[in-house]
Parts: sequence; C-alpha cells; structure tokens
Amino acid sequence: MDSTKRRAARRERQTKEAKSGPKFRPLQNPWPALEIASPEQIERVHQASIYILETIGMRFLDAEALSLWEAAGAKVDYKAQHVWIDGGLVTDLIRQAPDSFTMRARNPLRDIPIGGNHISFFPCAGVVNVSNSQVGRQQGTEATYQELIKLWQASNVIHFAGMQAVAMHDVPVSCRHLKTRLHGHTLSDKAIFGVSHGRIISEDCLAASRIIFGDDLTTGGPVTGCVINVNSPLVYDDRMLGGLITYARAGQAVVITPFILSGAMSPITIPATIAQQNAEALAGMALAQIVNPGTPVVYGGFTTNADMRSGSPAFGTPEGAWALLLGTQLARYYGVPYRGSGSLNTANSVDAQAAYESMWTLWPAVQAHANIIVHAAGWLESGLTVSYEKLIIDCENLAMMQHFLGNINWSDDAFLLDMIQKVGPGGHHFATPHTQANYRTAFFDGTLADRSNYERWLDGGEKDIVQRAAERWQAILRDFEAPKLHESVQEELEGFVERRTQELQGVSLYD
Amino acid sequence: MDSTKRRAARRERQTKEAKSGPKFRPLQNPWPALEIASPEQIERVHQASIYILETIGMRFLDAEALSLWEAAGAKVDYKAQHVWIDGGLVTDLIRQAPDSFTMRARNPLRDIPIGGNHISFFPCAGVVNVSNSQVGRQQGTEATYQELIKLWQASNVIHFAGMQAVAMHDVPVSCRHLKTRLHGHTLSDKAIFGVSHGRIISEDCLAASRIIFGDDLTTGGPVTGCVINVNSPLVYDDRMLGGLITYARAGQAVVITPFILSGAMSPITIPATIAQQNAEALAGMALAQIVNPGTPVVYGGFTTNADMRSGSPAFGTPEGAWALLLGTQLARYYGVPYRGSGSLNTANSVDAQAAYESMWTLWPAVQAHANIIVHAAGWLESGLTVSYEKLIIDCENLAMMQHFLGNINWSDDAFLLDMIQKVGPGGHHFATPHTQANYRTAFFDGTLADRSNYERWLDGGEKDIVQRAAERWQAILRDFEAPKLHESVQEELEGFVERRTQELQGVSLYD
Repeated sequence: MDSTKRRAARRERQTKEAKSGPKFRPLQNPWPALEIASPEQIERVHQASIYILETIGMRFLDAEALSLWEAAGAKVDYKAQHVWIDGGLVTDLIRQAPDSFTMRARNPLRDIPIGGNHISFFPCAGVVNVSNSQVGRQQGTEATYQELIKLWQASNVIHFAGMQAVAMHDVPVSCRHLKTRLHGHTLSDKAIFGVSHGRIISEDCLAASRIIFGDDLTTGGPVTGCVINVNSPLVYDDRMLGGLITYARAGQAVVITPFILSGAMSPITIPATIAQQNAEALAGMALAQIVNPGTPVVYGGFTTNADMRSGSPAFGTPEGAWALLLGTQLARYYGVPYRGSGSLNTANSVDAQAAYESMWTLWPAVQAHANIIVHAAGWLESGLTVSYEKLIIDCENLAMMQHFLGNINWSDDAFLLDMIQKVGPGGHHFATPHTQANYRTAFFDGTLADRSNYERWLDGGEKDIVQRAAERWQAILRDFEAPKLHESVQEELEGFVERRTQELQGVSLYD
Repeated sequence: MDSTKRRAARRERQTKEAKSGPKFRPLQNPWPALEIASPEQIERVHQASIYILETIGMRFLDAEALSLWEAAGAKVDYKAQHVWIDGGLVTDLIRQAPDSFTMRARNPLRDIPIGGNHISFFPCAGVVNVSNSQVGRQQGTEATYQELIKLWQASNVIHFAGMQAVAMHDVPVSCRHLKTRLHGHTLSDKAIFGVSHGRIISEDCLAASRIIFGDDLTTGGPVTGCVINVNSPLVYDDRMLGGLITYARAGQAVVITPFILSGAMSPITIPATIAQQNAEALAGMALAQIVNPGTPVVYGGFTTNADMRSGSPAFGTPEGAWALLLGTQLARYYGVPYRGSGSLNTANSVDAQAAYESMWTLWPAVQAHANIIVHAAGWLESGLTVSYEKLIIDCENLAMMQHFLGNINWSDDAFLLDMIQKVGPGGHHFATPHTQANYRTAFFDGTLADRSNYERWLDGGEKDIVQRAAERWQAILRDFEAPKLHESVQEELEGFVERRTQELQGVSLYD
C-alpha cells in the first residue's frame, strides 16, 4: 500500500471509529443507590441546616430577592441584606418542586428525563482555557467554543450540548452569552443550558430559546436551565439571584449549586460541610418556588475538600466522593433531582492522576444516582482548562458506564449449555457458530484502549492513550456535520444575535 | 539553600512522605454490597452450573483427584479423566467450607480477616517483567523480587506480601519457590501465599511455613494459601490439582480461580460465562472439602471478556466489572469468601488508560465486597509486567479507598454550628481555631497528586504523576528496614532453602 492509500485507509478507519459506539439514549442506574448515611444521620443534617437557615441566616444581595423572601414570610434585614428562614416555610416551598421533569431539546429524540434513577451526562462548563496536542494550551476563543460544541454533539454519551463551554476571549464580554446560544443551537440539537449572570443576559438566553421552541417554554418540560452557584458560605450574590429569578419566572430548570471547599468555605468536617451545603441549596430551591411555584429545580453539589497544604481545591478525593453520595441522598430525602459532577481532577496533564481522580468522581456520582452529572468530560487543571484529548478519554469511560448500566440478557437462550457441552472441557469458543455470529456486538466495543502486546505497541510507535485520543477528536471535527436547523429559524436566531450584539456594545450588563 | 542542603531537605521530605499515610488495618466495606442480579437470576446461574457439573462434567488430570471424587460418590471415567458431579454432593461439600477465616501473618498485627464485609488488598502476582523509570522494562530477577517485597511491605494498604510477585529469571526454575519463601518471610512480616505447582513445590512452601509458625498451621486460621487456576473450560490440570490437594490437606487457604475470557474460554454471553465459572469454582472448592472437610476455601474469579478484534484479554471493561459483581454475589449465595482483582489493565505504559482500567476493576471489586482483591497494585500490560511507578499510584488509590471506607465522624460536635455562626455569611474558615487545630488530619492526605496550578507545575519541571511516583519508590527502597525475624528462625529458614536448593538441582519438579 502506498502512503496515499494508507492515509486514506487510516482516515476511513478513524471516521468509522468516530461514528461507531453507543446510541444516544437516556440512562438509568437499574441498581440500588449507594447510601452511606443512615436515615437518622440524614435527619440530623436536615435539622442542622434548618438551624442554619433559622438562626444564622443567609445573605441575598438583591433587592427583589429580599422582597420575595419577606412576602413569603421570612424575616428580612434589608440593610444587612440578611434573611432568616423558618424551617416550615422552607420545607413547604421545597415540596412544591417536581421530583422529576423532562429537559427538552430542539430535537425531541434528545429530550432527557431528569430525576429518579435517571442519569445524564453534561459537558464541562465555565472553563477558561482549551488544550490539545495540536495547539497546546491557549485561552478559549469563539473557534474553540465551536469545536467543543461539535465534540459534545458528536458524542452519543453526552446528553447536553452544555453551557458556557469555554470563555470566548476574542468576543466582547457583553455578547458572549449570545454566541453560546448561536453556536449551541446551530451546531447541536441537544438540550443546552443558558448563562445566568444577571437579568439581562438571562432574558437574552430565554429570548433565543423562544426563537427555537416558540413562546411556550414549559409545556412538556423546560427547554433550558441554569446553574446558580452560591458564594459559600451563605451568600447569594446579585448576578446569581438575577439569573435564578429570571429562569424560575420562565419555568426553566434552576440547578442550585453551592461550591464548597471544606476547610475553606465551611468548617473542616463532613457533617458541618454537608449541613451548610444543604442549607444553601434549600434556600435557593425555595426561592425559586416563591418566584414560580412548581419550577423544576435541581439540588446541586460541588463540595469537596481544600488541599490543606496549599489551600487549593482537591478534586477526585474520598471527601469529594462522600459529599457527592451524601448530597444525592439528601436530594432523595427532599424529593428533588441531584446534580453531581463527573470528571473532576486537579492534574495539569492528561496523565494517570487526571484519569484516576476523574474515576473517583464518576463512580460515586453513578453509584449515588446523581441525575445530572456535569463536567462529565474534558476537565483538567481543576476546571481551568478543557483538554480535547481528555474529553475523548472521558467519553470512552461514559460509554463504558452506559454499557455497564445496560441490561444483561438473562434469557434462557443466553445460558448456552448446549454450546458449553459441545465445546467440552479443554476446547475453545472462538470458532463456534454462536461466537462467530455475535462477536461484533457481544461486548463493549471500545477502540480507544490499546490492548496490543508490548512488542506490537512498540512497533506502532509507543502511542499512549493521549495520542490515540488526539487522532479521534481530529477525525470527529473533520467529519462533523451540523444537525439541520430550519433556515428561517436559523436566520431569526442570527438576526437576534446580531441585533443584541449591537445593542449591548459597551453596555455593562451587571449595573 | 545550597544544592547539598536542598538535596538533604528533599530527601527528608520524601522519606517523611514515604513513611506517612494510613495505618495498617483490616478493612471493611460498611455499606451494602452492590448486587446486580436478582435472587432468581442467581438461582438460575446455580442451576445451570449444576447442569454443567452433572451432565457435561469436568476433567481432572490427576489420579489422586479422580480417586477422591470417586470415593466421595461422583461418577468417574478414569481413562478420560472425566468426572460428573451430582448437585447435591457439591452443595453438601461446599456447606462444609467456613464462611470466613483469619489469615495469619508472622506478625500477628498483620493478621487479616477474610470473609463477610472484609476487604483486603493483595499485591500483583505471577508477573514476568518489571519496569521502572530507572532501568526500563526487563525480565524479573531475584533482586527485583526483593525490591517488590520491600515495596509491598512498606505500604500499609497492602495486606499481604504476595505470592510469586515476579518470575526470578536468574534463579533455576526448580528453586524459585524456595526464594519466594526466603524473601517473603525475611523482608516482610505480612501473610504470604505459596507456590502451588504440584506437590513437591507445595510441600516445600508448607515446610517453610512450619519453620516460621511451628507445626500447627491451622489453629487460629491458615498461615498461607494458594491460588488454583482452572484451565477453562472445565479442566483442572495435574500441577494445580497437586497444589490444591497438598494445601487443602494442610488446612491452608485454597483460592479457586477460573480464568475465563468470555468468547474464548466460554460462550460469548454473561450468563453462560458466569455459569461456567461457577461450575468450575464449585468443583474445586468441593474437592478441597473432600480432601479435608472445613478447609478454608475462597471462590475466585478472574473472568473478563476477550477483545474480539484481537483475541487478547480485555481488562478493566464493563463485562469484567459485571463478572466481578456477579461472582461475589454467587460467593455470598454459597457462604464462602470471594477473591476479585484490583488493578487490572491492558495498557503498555502508565498512562490514563492504565489508570482508568484499573479503577474499572477496583471500584466494582470494592462495591462487590470482594474479600481478597488480588493484583491490587502494580499491574501493567495485562499482567505481564509490574511497574514500580504504577504500584505507587495504585497504592495511593488503595489508601484513598481505605479512607473512603472509613467512618465519617457523625458526632454532634462535628456539626460545628457555632463555627458556622461565628464565621457567618461571606467569611472563611481557613483561619478558625477549629480548622487550625484539625487541618493536618481532617482529610485524606495524599501527597502523590499534584494540585499546584499550571504555572507552578511548569516551574516545577512539568512532572507528571509517573515521575513523582518514581521519586516515591526510590525513597521507600532507600529507607527500607526489614522487620525483625528471630536470628535462629532466619538461620533455619536459610538452611532449609539451601538444603532444598541442593536437593532439587536438576530435578524436574513436574514429572
């Protein structure tokens, strides 16, 4: 074979590999959730968080939020922007939240159920840099944003097309949120979340959703959502509250996520940290219910420990795993879905540390039955960077997890005692008609792991998995085809983005 | 600081890091085991394996084994070396096996309970090559054998000092087993397993145990054990049967481990593969009970799928995880302990693939409550090679797992509501007296993961985790001190090894 033919053959194989793999489908964990706390311990966490809400209180740095709390019956100190919330009030409000809902995508085949034993994988979000073996590590741009959306769209184990995948440093801050909608809806037909920094940005995202879905954003489930972080300990800032109120008013999914590093933003024990997380999450979910009773909310957790040697976040730790499991258990206690995380790690290169810390996040998240597993693919450097190669490696693991959670065929036919008899002691099954008929589909068919022996691996150029992953994402981007969007809709969306880009030029959105 | 001082400081830090870490202690998984099959499905696996034993039968390539089966009531064809075993006979025999036992070590503080919710980590075994960043990849030698025993001994999360860690290519085959005993008992005070290739080798291992433990090898629990592999499908060979019978007669632990690659040594479905594994394991455990009723046996599984593209084993797969979980569930059904594996992978370098495949073995093994987790640290290249750096990385993960399985302090004091109140909304907890008093011990304190930011990591020379692991094992070996063994015992052991080495020169042990 000459080199042109060889290249063509390799290209074809890579294309095939990129296109093969699992089908897009909603996942469920069919087995019991791992619960590491007793019902009595969960009850004590609840009581402690009610004490925090009633006696210590929280700060809400937004005038409308303070009024909403007062009207609902909470005690409010407007000057201090401090609110004390009665336990009965909070639990009454949380009871209005649905225990599950469906997140709608512009392609209905991509709708995703959230809640119960359903699990969904969400891309990484809010990242600053991208890195890959072609360009190295650089600040995110509009072009890399588009590449990431394409990679999420192409993977059938990623259930959403994300939310602020990476900061577009070459786009003015005031219009980045518009570009997230433009690229999210034109390059992907999966559900996307919106930006939620204040009311103006949030309204823009909702307006874009209306172009795609029409004016009814709620029948059959929300069409977008937002992640609201708490400034732990115990503060909701004005930007997040503007976002929370705007999305809740529109009946869109509000994922309340305290970000707590135990030892830094909470006391250095698990019960105190989880009680504080719980108080913070309850307050946010309750506020969404005040704004709009029945708003789909998700209890989110992003709790781990600080590395007490350096003060840095420590991701993929036993404490992080505990927090994930306890958080999900608490969400079940309140009857709301939970949001965990998937590929968290602190590594600076895509090495064994990056991989095992990610597994220390994904495995407990799946065992916990966390319903939305955010940052499920691509994270590196504690979330500062998204690595294209790590994204591919993480997606391989998500595909393995999808297969693992699938059903084993336990039919009588599957026992194949006749075949065991026929082959008999000492024989082999490679060549049996049954094996020959089924070998292509019987097992998880990953092509990223290299299982060749050492000598063949040497002959092949000693490629480690990062090199193989680099070939994979390049093939995916090369062959990417955007899912069709009706021309008139696309024009309307582009027109909207253009108009708002003009209007927002030079505007400070958070005044 | 001049370079000498800097070196000294670094050396001291490395020594400290090598010595720090978790205490040696038996582990338990305090949470419910993950069960992925219904009781009815487990019952059907049982029935299918009884069908295999009764109707298809198995081959036992050893005259004594055939006589034992006949005397116990099985149907035996001596010429074909084929045995058909009645279901009632098998289950009666299995019922005589203890559901748990204690594995004794020469240091009683290293005794390890096997069974129930207890989990123990066993080094990798039966490996051909070693690799590390100092010498590269090379065949195992006596010197590298000694280094591995030192590394197992130094790690407090490795509960055994192993069994044939690596083949000693510079020692005549006929005396390698003697050296495993010599180095195992002089460089380590942990429990060790013996070689079990036929009767002569096995008797030698037991004789060495008698030098260490005295003539009573059974009161309080066995002092050694062996792993008996099945030549799947459905064959026990002469060497393994010689070992099984010899260890069982001495009341030592017999770990029966079918090694099945689904699609190659069994039909290409999970139910057929697990039913065959179960039949094979039941037969071996039952034979041990015929030899010596009450012999501690362990149901072992090493079942995974073949990579159907290449025919190679595929480790760290969803199918391997299923097999581990189903095997452990079956062991509970029969009331015997289970042996799983811990760091299985097919990678040729210590990369992200090596790490995630290992996690795909360790996590299900721990969730399953597998009681002995063999190959828990160091595996590479589908078990052909033990990597020193991977060993260190795996041990870090075992330490994380030990911490994860530990108890969360749920006392009232741990809720620290006063501290949450004192710090209040928007404050921080780094500087509180409680954090300051507890920050050294509050969290899992791994030092292998690098959590510094990208710029500091670059300044530090862009070390990935393999480089950091290399520094760690070098420090451990440099500072290793062998646990004291009474001088007279050591002399007796050395004398025994010397005498048998002479006697076995040129002898073919398997004739």
